[in-house]
Amino acid sequence: MGLVRRLSSRRLYSGHVLSLDLDEVEEPGGVHAQREVVRHSGSVAILAVTDDAQLVLVRQYRYPVDALVWELPAGRLDPGEQPKEAAQRELEEETGLSPAQIEPLLTYFTSPGFCDEVMHLFRATALRAVPTRPDADERIDVARVSFEQASAMARRGEISDAKTLLALSLERERRRSTP
Amino acid sequence: MGLVRRLSSRRLYSGHVLSLDLDEVEEPGGVHAQREVVRHSGSVAILAVTDDAQLVLVRQYRYPVDALVWELPAGRLDPGEQPKEAAQRELEEETGLSPAQIEPLLTYFTSPGFCDEVMHLFRATALRAVPTRPDADERIDVARVSFEQASAMARRGEISDAKTLLALSLERERRRSTP
Repeated sequence: MGLVRRLSSRRLYSGHVLSLDLDEVEEPGGVHAQREVVRHSGSVAILAVTDDAQLVLVRQYRYPVDALVWELPAGRLDPGEQPKEAAQRELEEETGLSPAQIEPLLTYFTSPGFCDEVMHLFRATALRAVPTRPDADERIDVARVSFEQASAMARRGEISDAKTLLALSLERERRRSTP
Repeated sequence: MGLVRRLSSRRLYSGHVLSLDLDEVEEPGGVHAQREVVRHSGSVAILAVTDDAQLVLVRQYRYPVDALVWELPAGRLDPGEQPKEAAQRELEEETGLSPAQIEPLLTYFTSPGFCDEVMHLFRATALRAVPTRPDADERIDVARVSFEQASAMARRGEISDAKTLLALSLERERRRSTP
């Protein structure tokens, strides 16, 4: 908190997935404001690439947007967990695939205007099968698609999730630069 | 609400930027769950390209992530406002540039796991100067950078905002396909 002076902070809600704060602050430039802030533990998402160059996507019902959403395997960081560990864990839990190799792709803010969520994107390869361990409140379909199929899904609007679109664009760059 | 049965819904907070609901639902596949959902009016962001092919970026302090963040000009939809109108308005307010042309680029979910925010990305051209009208609680720096400069900022981790990274990747594709 080097840039801001926090005049007051009120935790309005403390939940399972997120918390909500209402803070009164003086920001750089003397801006006095009340800020509603969603506090989140951070997320990981994994672009998993099989040995035969297929991408692993999952489809699940997402209540906030009332839709079945095609996404990368993803999830929240557990308390004290490192992003890479979380990525490995979520990939195994959701898809039953354990990666021998996993590399960071990109770390970014999902919605810095009202939420502190940081997304850590990884690319996982050298996958081997392990048992899935879905959360009790998750029902997940797993699919393997070629990069071309995934790109076509994105073009047709069938992939409409930020992290998945960003990972596909990074994969496109990678394929261009490593023929 | 075709896919879900909502058993109960409680509005925990109703605010200026967002609201928070705690809903009990029965989702497809018989999943019974409590869901914490951030309700948001939706957002727009604008990739504005000047006549001499510069991109218009803004930098502002974002309290949730306690950082000065380089971003596309962006903002929330006002009640009843169409995304295209909002894009035009936000671009004018934040940068003092009014576009004669504005086209939709991409619409996506920012964080469908806990938030219903939809982001509408636009590309704006044929810009002319108008007075800026920043919100009272905003302090915004405006910069014009080349596409190459913006790409270098992204590679160095100086751009770490999802919508801005996605817009840059779309612009890269566009430049590849229209030499």
